[in-house]
Amino acid sequence: MLLYKGARTVSPPSLTRCPLASSQWEQDLLLAAAYVSDAQYNRNVPFETSPRAIRLYYFYNHWTLRVATYVFICVDLSLALFEEPALFPLPFLATSIVEVLCLTAFFGRLVHFAKVTPQMVFWKDTKNICILVTIALTLLDLIIYGSLEAVQIHGIRWSRAFRPVFLINFPESRQIRRALRSLRNTLPDILYVFLLFMFSVLIFSLMALKLFGDRGLKTAEGSPYLTNILEIAFELYVLVTTANSPDVMMPAYDFNRWYSLYFIAYIIINTYIFMSVFLAVVYNNYRKHLKNEIRKLVYLKRHKMMEAFKILKVKVGTEFVVREAEWKRLARMVVPDISSSHLELLWRISDEGQKGHVDRMNFLRLADLLNIQVVTVNIRKHPLEAWAPRVYQSSASLFVQRMVRHRAFVWVYDVIILVNAIFIALDERSLFISRAEWFFLCLYVAEILLKLYTYEPRAYLGRKQFWNWFDILIIIAALVATVANATIQSARRYNSQQVLDIVLILRILRLLRVIVSIQRWSTTPSPSSGWKCSRAKCGSFDPNFTSPDALVCGNPALRGSAFARARYCKNNFNDLASAFLLLTELTVVNQWHVIAGGFALATHQAAKLYFIFFHVVVVILIVNIFIAFILEAFFVAYSLEKSELETVIEKKIQELGVGIQEEEEQDKKPTDNVGSKDGGSSGGDGDHGGAAAKGLYCRIASNKYRTVDALLQRMFESEIAPDEEGPSLDEILSFSPSDMYVKNPNFENSA
Amino acid sequence: MLLYKGARTVSPPSLTRCPLASSQWEQDLLLAAAYVSDAQYNRNVPFETSPRAIRLYYFYNHWTLRVATYVFICVDLSLALFEEPALFPLPFLATSIVEVLCLTAFFGRLVHFAKVTPQMVFWKDTKNICILVTIALTLLDLIIYGSLEAVQIHGIRWSRAFRPVFLINFPESRQIRRALRSLRNTLPDILYVFLLFMFSVLIFSLMALKLFGDRGLKTAEGSPYLTNILEIAFELYVLVTTANSPDVMMPAYDFNRWYSLYFIAYIIINTYIFMSVFLAVVYNNYRKHLKNEIRKLVYLKRHKMMEAFKILKVKVGTEFVVREAEWKRLARMVVPDISSSHLELLWRISDEGQKGHVDRMNFLRLADLLNIQVVTVNIRKHPLEAWAPRVYQSSASLFVQRMVRHRAFVWVYDVIILVNAIFIALDERSLFISRAEWFFLCLYVAEILLKLYTYEPRAYLGRKQFWNWFDILIIIAALVATVANATIQSARRYNSQQVLDIVLILRILRLLRVIVSIQRWSTTPSPSSGWKCSRAKCGSFDPNFTSPDALVCGNPALRGSAFARARYCKNNFNDLASAFLLLTELTVVNQWHVIAGGFALATHQAAKLYFIFFHVVVVILIVNIFIAFILEAFFVAYSLEKSELETVIEKKIQELGVGIQEEEEQDKKPTDNVGSKDGGSSGGDGDHGGAAAKGLYCRIASNKYRTVDALLQRMFESEIAPDEEGPSLDEILSFSPSDMYVKNPNFENSA
Repeated sequence: MLLYKGARTVSPPSLTRCPLASSQWEQDLLLAAAYVSDAQYNRNVPFETSPRAIRLYYFYNHWTLRVATYVFICVDLSLALFEEPALFPLPFLATSIVEVLCLTAFFGRLVHFAKVTPQMVFWKDTKNICILVTIALTLLDLIIYGSLEAVQIHGIRWSRAFRPVFLINFPESRQIRRALRSLRNTLPDILYVFLLFMFSVLIFSLMALKLFGDRGLKTAEGSPYLTNILEIAFELYVLVTTANSPDVMMPAYDFNRWYSLYFIAYIIINTYIFMSVFLAVVYNNYRKHLKNEIRKLVYLKRHKMMEAFKILKVKVGTEFVVREAEWKRLARMVVPDISSSHLELLWRISDEGQKGHVDRMNFLRLADLLNIQVVTVNIRKHPLEAWAPRVYQSSASLFVQRMVRHRAFVWVYDVIILVNAIFIALDERSLFISRAEWFFLCLYVAEILLKLYTYEPRAYLGRKQFWNWFDILIIIAALVATVANATIQSARRYNSQQVLDIVLILRILRLLRVIVSIQRWSTTPSPSSGWKCSRAKCGSFDPNFTSPDALVCGNPALRGSAFARARYCKNNFNDLASAFLLLTELTVVNQWHVIAGGFALATHQAAKLYFIFFHVVVVILIVNIFIAFILEAFFVAYSLEKSELETVIEKKIQELGVGIQEEEEQDKKPTDNVGSKDGGSSGGDGDHGGAAAKGLYCRIASNKYRTVDALLQRMFESEIAPDEEGPSLDEILSFSPSDMYVKNPNFENSA
Repeated sequence: MLLYKGARTVSPPSLTRCPLASSQWEQDLLLAAAYVSDAQYNRNVPFETSPRAIRLYYFYNHWTLRVATYVFICVDLSLALFEEPALFPLPFLATSIVEVLCLTAFFGRLVHFAKVTPQMVFWKDTKNICILVTIALTLLDLIIYGSLEAVQIHGIRWSRAFRPVFLINFPESRQIRRALRSLRNTLPDILYVFLLFMFSVLIFSLMALKLFGDRGLKTAEGSPYLTNILEIAFELYVLVTTANSPDVMMPAYDFNRWYSLYFIAYIIINTYIFMSVFLAVVYNNYRKHLKNEIRKLVYLKRHKMMEAFKILKVKVGTEFVVREAEWKRLARMVVPDISSSHLELLWRISDEGQKGHVDRMNFLRLADLLNIQVVTVNIRKHPLEAWAPRVYQSSASLFVQRMVRHRAFVWVYDVIILVNAIFIALDERSLFISRAEWFFLCLYVAEILLKLYTYEPRAYLGRKQFWNWFDILIIIAALVATVANATIQSARRYNSQQVLDIVLILRILRLLRVIVSIQRWSTTPSPSSGWKCSRAKCGSFDPNFTSPDALVCGNPALRGSAFARARYCKNNFNDLASAFLLLTELTVVNQWHVIAGGFALATHQAAKLYFIFFHVVVVILIVNIFIAFILEAFFVAYSLEKSELETVIEKKIQELGVGIQEEEEQDKKPTDNVGSKDGGSSGGDGDHGGAAAKGLYCRIASNKYRTVDALLQRMFESEIAPDEEGPSLDEILSFSPSDMYVKNPNFENSA
């Protein structure tokens, strides 16, 4: 998108940046530098700017045009809602006119882009070709479909499948393209793991077929259980997603409890380990490719900033620099509404030595500096104070202001919101409660008015005061909706369902304000509680479901419950093995609500609390820690193929001339004629002849570590400086994570 | 565990290290250094060693005693299987005798530990106190329970709950203690997120109560739908675990399709975002605390190595060093079976300049060097060659050996394994197939014999040749089991179920060998395929379930299916909104097998492939990428509270004296009298009096970034050296992740 050649004198471009645009200042800075250089030095800079081209470029990047492009893309995509099979059917003529409109807009945007881009660059970019071809194909399809419709033949609008092309290929959709690229790049890496995973599922399917296929077992629905290899593979795949968790196991478990070992092994290997490895592979690849993309962006930015520097540089003493005047002019041109104090601040940061010019390194930082938002805070007088200072400063008024500013004011309103939440939870058809709603509405309005009275209104409604705006909009909307509802009700004695729904949602959204208060809380450790759930407390079921009591599991309270219908009678705490299996099922998560419901029926509703507690501790905490360990171990094994020390050893091995050549090793199978010995003495047995003239070779054993400790040390040792001796023993023992990055300066080197 | 004072002369300790022990050589090295120093220099080293104490210490660390401790812990824990409620009941007398035996062993181990530890250290360690108290309590409980049993009163064995204390508190269980500590440390951090999450669930529950509570809707089972606030909160919590995924939504969705928006919002916020944040918090804390633990270990190691260095150092020239003789003696003492070549290799690495001594830095590396396994590879002659060289070297024998070594041999056996897999999948009651099993068994035996003939047997059965051992054991076991089964069958005309099960599992485990072959494959990108599933292909259902056809969804093929019974008729591809919702349900995973089964019935079994494909692409790939992004963003926001550049700006703000003091800012509410302006010009309005004398303050706006791009750049920019200018434009555009760590040496500094 660089602009080549043109006349010298241009009017200073005014840059109105779009809030949607990504924060990349470097292109603007480069253009502005070219302009400044032109005006100042009349220099023959490498990139020159014609006034028409530069105006076209700024117009292309104007936020209105960007927003318009997004709107047209949205309209084009949402056409699917109105075409057959439609949610809201519209005639073909209407949708086709809208579509032609969108296509025209896309074409215009592309032509505009071609004007501000060198021809070579434009035609080399496949994205542009894609858009052009899609536009042409869509028009062709519209014409064919329209003419067929005219003679009453119903065709297929095949070009509708191409619509996402516009979303992906316009230059504005960089994020989407990046996500798609990272998806495509991840595929080959995950394929190998996926093959291993599918192989594991197939092995388990074969085992299941042999173990359960001939038993003549029936599922809860009465159909044959695991008799067909494809069906088994499908069921086991579903088990990986946890969706059919206990159901698929129950017939085998009922037949013989030892068969549950098979399912536990399957769940550990496939549901937990393989799924975590998938996450780790995906995460790792995503990170790797994303890093690469970002690196590109950063280097591109530096490149452009270097170009800008080259255009503006002047020689002062021995080094090339940019002078203060040009630097400030550049910044002002790119950010026309920058405040003088902000600009001065940036200048002081760039020009550390106060020399009146910046060197190359400091100039390169300009784009980053502009990215950091600096708020200039401005203390203003309340308008009421200016209008009626005596009244506003009176003791009553000051008391009100002090009251509103007091933190108890916030607490009082937090309490009000909570009371309101309880009222909402209660039945509202009672007259008292529906009147209370008006009362709460008044309280909220009073709060806003009081705050507007106390705080300066422009400050209260500043651009960044999200929660203030949220308050006001919610309350106004609730007022309007409640009044409208009351009017309709009194006029026609009828509740408008839509208005009522809106009122209810607004009323609850108001409660969100407590989030601000929660952020103020300090957290305290949660109480621990008993774990074991004895047989007496959790209800006892008769697992013998072939008895006439099958549907009540030996407990009349369970008659007709989902627990009994799903034949979950064997899921109980009656002995250790049953309890263990039940807890395993709960860890897999699925159907745990049915299990919890069964126990709640058999004992007390509070039994559900035990199951929720178990889910939090085991699934949320422990399973995630397990996943985290796999993640971490995987990343370390990936990034540190060989440790520094191992490389040194390998180099030394090669130097000493006792290394096995790579080619030799690849040619040989691992079961070759080489006996491995781990550090065993080999001095005595050098009595071999033949091809093994030397008799002794060395190689690094493997990249694997025998102990968890060694792996963990390797994980983090690279992050500790090798020449750092570390703190004293006492300090080591009292380490906490918070001082991790502080180096200990007091260590006495006593060696 | 340092040993203090004692006599001078000790016999050189022989260190038989346990394979279970963690690979920490530093304690041994320190002790050995003390011994070497004693013997060599008769020096008064800080840690001296009595012969009895040192022998006790080595005996304590002997692998037999460690293994014995583990065995006793396992026996103690497995007692739960034999006590009431028992899986295999045993009389109280038997279990109590075993328990007393275990307790005695634990007590002995503890006394032994006390002997090799300074008293102060022993009694300060709560772990030891814990074990002592638990032993006492368990004995007390045994006595009470036993005496109550004697008079026929049944008590409760409450001390059984304390048994895991032994597992956790013995010094050998460092991994378990570390996991528990990381769990405990994670709890406070996760609590805040959990509170926010619970608040979100409550808000949604209130909304659900208001939206659905009064509609008089019924669930599929006919019970009232979402009428009680507690029930709603429970159902919504279950939805977070995806377990009741479409069921909980169906009644509202059937009533009005727009209500599904509520559930989609809930799933996005709570199931996806909150669950990922949980993972990220857990992962982050786990990593942080683990890092701290490891840092402790590393510094402890360095500390001990420093002590050992101090004991052994001699002054050569200006620096303190350790001489070759002492160094080698030390290494030989710690690893008695180290080979001379291995030792020489380590010495050469440590003594880079071949000066005959190592300095402090290189000495410190010794513990790490010993950790790296170096295999000395030894080429031996085949015993047959030594025994009958003429026959073994004959052309026929050489041909066999060449054949076995050829890679086609592996391929042939891969094919045989696959054919075997197909045979296993087929029905085995046919005579031909059960005979084929013998044929395959012979082939596998032949393979092993051929390999033993070709490769040197000691090499083939080397310690690290896992797959060879696996092969041989599986085949021998299968031979024995098959022969046993055939004998039983022919003798009693009866298939022993247990033996048959073992044979089948062994037969399938054999197939695992293909994993080795899969690792040889090169991966190729998978083919992409069409996404859209049109109405014509995927079957059309009548969503009007109040009609008499309710249980067949308007499609006779679905009569009585789980799909129809669960009232999933509205889950279809009939229009865009339905398709979108169905795909959302599939992403949540649960019950997708029911949905897939319904479509398979309505159209063709192959429709299931579409659903599997969808699960792989969306759940495994896209959801994980989403999680990875959240992980990454979370970690960056956590570790880089403020970027370098922002710190510079803040410092400059303070220097210029226009900063708002921390205390002031904390005191004021965000809705205070300060109007925020982002870089707006503020030069003109300095006309305020009163308390705001200065009128203008500056602060950094926030740590948040408005655009994804800015956040991403920040993620990785810290890893790129700030003074590096980067490669040329062409090179930037052709970046790939593989060259990420190669710095570009050819960049021309043209500024």
